[in-house]
Amino acid sequence: MRGVLMYGPGDVRVAGRDLPEIIEPTDAVIRLAATCICGSDLWPYRGLEPLAASPVPMGHEYAGVVEQVGAEVKSVRPGDFVVGSFFASDNTCEICRAGYQSRCVHGVLMGSIGTQAQFARVPLADGTLVATPGLPDEDMIPSLLAASDVLGTGWFAAVAAEAGPGKTVAVVGDGAVGLLGVLAARQLGADRVIAMSRHPDRQALAREFGATDIVEERGDNGVAKVKELTGGLGAHSVIEAVGTQESMTQAIRSARPGGHIGYVGVSHDVALDGTELFFSEVHLHGGPAPVRRFLPDLIDLIWKRQIDPGVVFDLTLPLEEAAEGYRAMDERRATKVLLTV
Amino acid sequence: MRGVLMYGPGDVRVAGRDLPEIIEPTDAVIRLAATCICGSDLWPYRGLEPLAASPVPMGHEYAGVVEQVGAEVKSVRPGDFVVGSFFASDNTCEICRAGYQSRCVHGVLMGSIGTQAQFARVPLADGTLVATPGLPDEDMIPSLLAASDVLGTGWFAAVAAEAGPGKTVAVVGDGAVGLLGVLAARQLGADRVIAMSRHPDRQALAREFGATDIVEERGDNGVAKVKELTGGLGAHSVIEAVGTQESMTQAIRSARPGGHIGYVGVSHDVALDGTELFFSEVHLHGGPAPVRRFLPDLIDLIWKRQIDPGVVFDLTLPLEEAAEGYRAMDERRATKVLLTV
Repeated sequence: MRGVLMYGPGDVRVAGRDLPEIIEPTDAVIRLAATCICGSDLWPYRGLEPLAASPVPMGHEYAGVVEQVGAEVKSVRPGDFVVGSFFASDNTCEICRAGYQSRCVHGVLMGSIGTQAQFARVPLADGTLVATPGLPDEDMIPSLLAASDVLGTGWFAAVAAEAGPGKTVAVVGDGAVGLLGVLAARQLGADRVIAMSRHPDRQALAREFGATDIVEERGDNGVAKVKELTGGLGAHSVIEAVGTQESMTQAIRSARPGGHIGYVGVSHDVALDGTELFFSEVHLHGGPAPVRRFLPDLIDLIWKRQIDPGVVFDLTLPLEEAAEGYRAMDERRATKVLLTV
Repeated sequence: MRGVLMYGPGDVRVAGRDLPEIIEPTDAVIRLAATCICGSDLWPYRGLEPLAASPVPMGHEYAGVVEQVGAEVKSVRPGDFVVGSFFASDNTCEICRAGYQSRCVHGVLMGSIGTQAQFARVPLADGTLVATPGLPDEDMIPSLLAASDVLGTGWFAAVAAEAGPGKTVAVVGDGAVGLLGVLAARQLGADRVIAMSRHPDRQALAREFGATDIVEERGDNGVAKVKELTGGLGAHSVIEAVGTQESMTQAIRSARPGGHIGYVGVSHDVALDGTELFFSEVHLHGGPAPVRRFLPDLIDLIWKRQIDPGVVFDLTLPLEEAAEGYRAMDERRATKVLLTV
């Protein structure tokens, strides 16, 4: 089969890979309907994160049709259209049951398997995959694929930030996750959502997803603007979807005392000042999103066409042109690239 | 009147100070029944935190009888026995109403006033002071005084750590706040409380307050022990009551993914590693405790003799001997020193 491999910074190629097989009786093998490139794939692409090996298979987002299941798999069967999280999880351990499937004691990172390919093995299929009610219409596939990571991650950030009725939510980061954090905050009932973005096209998408205010300023100027919009107090809830020192600082300073920050930008070279954090008196919660917790509800919302997160994909390319997809995201010509398989 | 002044590191004296007067119509002046020395007073005493001036009045914990009230004070009157928090607060602003009186928009740090004295002015008396149902018995005064800070702070830490039924709570720090965090966790219904302490006398007090397990190891060995006691997962809830890099790291590593850390040790030279925090997937909440939120309930528990937090005071001295009190705490000869006035 064909699959995406990264050989080093800036060097992405589509090449032949072995067809995946059932290894454990709890595995499934799926035929991808679509896959995509993640903002986090850009870290190694830009040389800001070491590669585990060279080449490494890439990709951790996926939606598609079950081809084969292991002997112990009970909840999905060949022919089912399924969506799964970027973390395979048993969904039965104590950590999973508490809603943290991204830290399942038997968890497997799908990134280590590489879903930017025609087929993928999914470990712990019963705990990982959620079947849709039937085969989806073609136009629904981008949204279902979004549920696999960016929507699920934005949703977790909004939940971690305790977005809800009566709340003002500020969103730091206007990538796909930040934008879907806006969508999630509104779906969860937030009164007001402040999207922090300097890009007109992303601002427009943020508005489409329900942002009520746009703040173009960054850093302390952005913080000042959020305070101005919130009676000097700061937002009740802040979603952080970047992962840098700047964005974390901006998030912490944008929240009011007692406010909640949901941070999901994969942390890179961040050191939080203990004294500032202490006196900020905020709640901080985040990490790799336990997407599996939210998947059934997200699939339901998509299936009923109540949300359309798939519009975050602003460039669609065939899998063979993955390298151009990476370039487009790296150069910010695209927010999020969908690869058709 | 007589009051404690700090002239510099290690230099504490009891000297004459002006009798406090009503300045604002919302002020009260109280006659202290007792006051005490806080672990946080040791930071400047040890030269680890600069003094705002020299000399500075010391102390921020207090319980006593109202002497005088300003024209606008409605909820307390002369003769009432009152307890207040170390932060004066209006208790009406949006931040106070959300339960964060320690970050009241009109807040005043009682430490800037200095309650290690015979009398003290309490700003925003209506929002700060809580009257007891009557004049307390002498033996109850230490417990009421404890509510002013150490009990309220330990309680906040336990609430921030979401201690409750079904939870295992680990407590990092065996000072007065940590010990009262043990008490709070049990009062809030925690099944199991692991006190981390190497001092036999403090271990005994932790047991008296309801600790079910003692861990003597520190750092990563302590973390390993907590994991061993929790099926390899870590505690659901962790109370951090020290404020150092070591204690924060120990707290974060002792919590399971999705767990809650309530941190109340005043942060000193702490930098939290973003990557570790991200992948720990914990909830982090803390800061200066909004003691006022809990005061009515804490006073009620003390009044009904359901809790006896005053036993954390293991040395009682007259105010005039405050310098010896500081020395005893600095040299760890005492956990917490009560000064009679």
